[in-house]
Amino acid sequence: MHVEIIAVTNYTAGEGAPVGLLEHAGRACYQSESRGQPGKFVQARVREGHESIIEHASVTFDISGISRACSHQLVRHRIASYSQESQRYVDMSAPEFVIPPSVVGNPDAVAVWDEFMAGVTGAYQRLRQLGVRKEDARFLLPNATATRIIVTMNFRSLRHFFSVRGEKAAQWEIRALALEMLRQVHQLAPAVFADQYERYLGQEGK
Amino acid sequence: MHVEIIAVTNYTAGEGAPVGLLEHAGRACYQSESRGQPGKFVQARVREGHESIIEHASVTFDISGISRACSHQLVRHRIASYSQESQRYVDMSAPEFVIPPSVVGNPDAVAVWDEFMAGVTGAYQRLRQLGVRKEDARFLLPNATATRIIVTMNFRSLRHFFSVRGEKAAQWEIRALALEMLRQVHQLAPAVFADQYERYLGQEGK
Amino acid sequence: MHVEIIAVTNYTAGEGAPVGLLEHAGRACYQSESRGQPGKFVQARVREGHESIIEHASVTFDISGISRACSHQLVRHRIASYSQESQRYVDMSAPEFVIPPSVVGNPDAVAVWDEFMAGVTGAYQRLRQLGVRKEDARFLLPNATATRIIVTMNFRSLRHFFSVRGEKAAQWEIRALALEMLRQVHQLAPAVFADQYERYLGQEGK
Amino acid sequence: MHVEIIAVTNYTAGEGAPVGLLEHAGRACYQSESRGQPGKFVQARVREGHESIIEHASVTFDISGISRACSHQLVRHRIASYSQESQRYVDMSAPEFVIPPSVVGNPDAVAVWDEFMAGVTGAYQRLRQLGVRKEDARFLLPNATATRIIVTMNFRSLRHFFSVRGEKAAQWEIRALALEMLRQVHQLAPAVFADQYERYLGQEGK
Repeated sequence: MHVEIIAVTNYTAGEGAPVGLLEHAGRACYQSESRGQPGKFVQARVREGHESIIEHASVTFDISGISRACSHQLVRHRIASYSQESQRYVDMSAPEFVIPPSVVGNPDAVAVWDEFMAGVTGAYQRLRQLGVRKEDARFLLPNATATRIIVTMNFRSLRHFFSVRGEKAAQWEIRALALEMLRQVHQLAPAVFADQYERYLGQEGK
Repeated sequence: MHVEIIAVTNYTAGEGAPVGLLEHAGRACYQSESRGQPGKFVQARVREGHESIIEHASVTFDISGISRACSHQLVRHRIASYSQESQRYVDMSAPEFVIPPSVVGNPDAVAVWDEFMAGVTGAYQRLRQLGVRKEDARFLLPNATATRIIVTMNFRSLRHFFSVRGEKAAQWEIRALALEMLRQVHQLAPAVFADQYERYLGQEGK
Repeated sequence: MHVEIIAVTNYTAGEGAPVGLLEHAGRACYQSESRGQPGKFVQARVREGHESIIEHASVTFDISGISRACSHQLVRHRIASYSQESQRYVDMSAPEFVIPPSVVGNPDAVAVWDEFMAGVTGAYQRLRQLGVRKEDARFLLPNATATRIIVTMNFRSLRHFFSVRGEKAAQWEIRALALEMLRQVHQLAPAVFADQYERYLGQEGK
Repeated sequence: MHVEIIAVTNYTAGEGAPVGLLEHAGRACYQSESRGQPGKFVQARVREGHESIIEHASVTFDISGISRACSHQLVRHRIASYSQESQRYVDMSAPEFVIPPSVVGNPDAVAVWDEFMAGVTGAYQRLRQLGVRKEDARFLLPNATATRIIVTMNFRSLRHFFSVRGEKAAQWEIRALALEMLRQVHQLAPAVFADQYERYLGQEGK
């Protein structure tokens, strides 16, 4: 799994982007003056549940090496924008696969897995040689097939995403993705994500 | 592929549901009186591009026998509600598969397909016997695996869906799904869908 | 304020609409069988926070006699569909006004109010006589001007609306609207709204 | 009316923000290589109707001096984020008003207008002196009252907004707002907005 932030909202009319922008938006509601601590102001609004102001900032991630099982779950989050690598147009004759940890730790399961995945590649290539188009040959490709997806979410939508997918009950792969995204956006906007960072990633430094 | 309408908006304050409701909403904007032809009124609004009034009516479909490739495309339409059969919780040791027409028409490809799919079932069952949980064993399952999904869309979102997925350039499976949905909602609300029915399904009766 | 439900999702493939539909959707996720108690099933899902299944049902309200101040707040709820009486097209020379309780209870304030509102109507009519179009004459109309709006929300969006606007900190008019909507949908789907009914309206029957 | 861009998506992983980001997203779908002309690539995608890639970029506007009539129309655009000056919390005893051009050009109408607006301010202040809270005194304030609102929209939502509100049939104030927004975002991303700039603002330089 590779996760990289490739874009973020830039506050061009002041300092402290992106949190400065959120304070700007929040203070417009009350025509109040900034006291020079955008982080404190924004954190207080989030704590009160006044989350609409944090929608003004967004982040774009370039995510690769996640399975199609994971991307299918991810795109169910509708307040977001997605551009995904298309198996209709991209040749998949040498795909990568995401292997679950529970398989990795089980040598017999690894043997089944390896044999099966070798068969996938062979069958895909044979269908292609028989004149089947990419968009139909991909019907063979398993959920494990790695994909790449560009995802833009605003901070409010991200907080919702983390609250659902950061929990221990979440499926392992989308949870790992959510936590990596959280780790990265926390650095950009600690005032917005500190409580979730503490909740889901607080132990990691200890 | 099986598509069945299981719910539709019922206009309880008047007649001619669901189109009667759309006229009710449209006439509220202008405080105008009904002239007893909700279909004409609504059709005129849609033709003008005043599509917001048709959002008030929705339809729910129970869709089964589509591939996971198709459902992955479907759920990218964000102005809709989805409840999908979960491969995390449902046992998939005897899955059904959707086979592309281009494979069906190619005996050599069918041979490759059949051998591959037999292997899928075997490998899934072996992983399960080795103690791998359903949510991880499903990583082997191909895009062809049939799924079931409950979909609710309002009429405006449906019109957008049909305009994108009804076109000949659309991928064959989601196009077949879109046209079947169009065929069915056209019967419920011809005033809303007549132009699209004519465009995409007009030849079928000839 | 007048609030009337004019449409609701009808579950055509089974019994117990609209809650029966929600159970249908929820059981599709797990391929589980109904045990004949859709209410219990749905209530359990809502309690767990699995709210996506309740999106499949919607209600449409015909709301009149609320102020434009209130409708401006209402339409900020974006997961909904609206058709509002247009002051651009409807003649407003004899408008109704919503008067705040705090004014009603203050005779001096009532005197100021009555004089002012008489002036509104006069000024609007004079502008119209001077050839100013409705869409510009309405610039004089106060926030108190009564409006009518058709609103469709799904059950999940309604629950969010009630959680924000049902609280005592909410502005009085939109709170009164929210509680009246809650009272009415609770009758349609007690399994979905019982906890909120208890929280916000529980005292009313005592 | 004052419109100022206060934030825009910054493409941190490459050059040519924000259009460079849109190309990045678009090329991820096809795993194709950039040829160094993000503008051409993005313009071609928009022309084809493949608008999802332009959702990844957003702009935030700080808008003031528009009427509440205008802001009520604006917030009906649901794929956007808003933070609006609250008449519940901000003292409005010296409000500014937006005056329609049709009134400005009509001396008799101006006389009616001026007398009326003087009365608004007086009545608001008297209610406040009588102990009526801001949130209730504001019921007197007319649609003409100037407001301030922070608006974030992604490029796809902006294109839709311009296509509806840029047309000559649109109400004059929201049209003026839309065209000023278009003028400003066109400078940031000509590849995305050139066709609409030409259509709605093409004559202005001649």
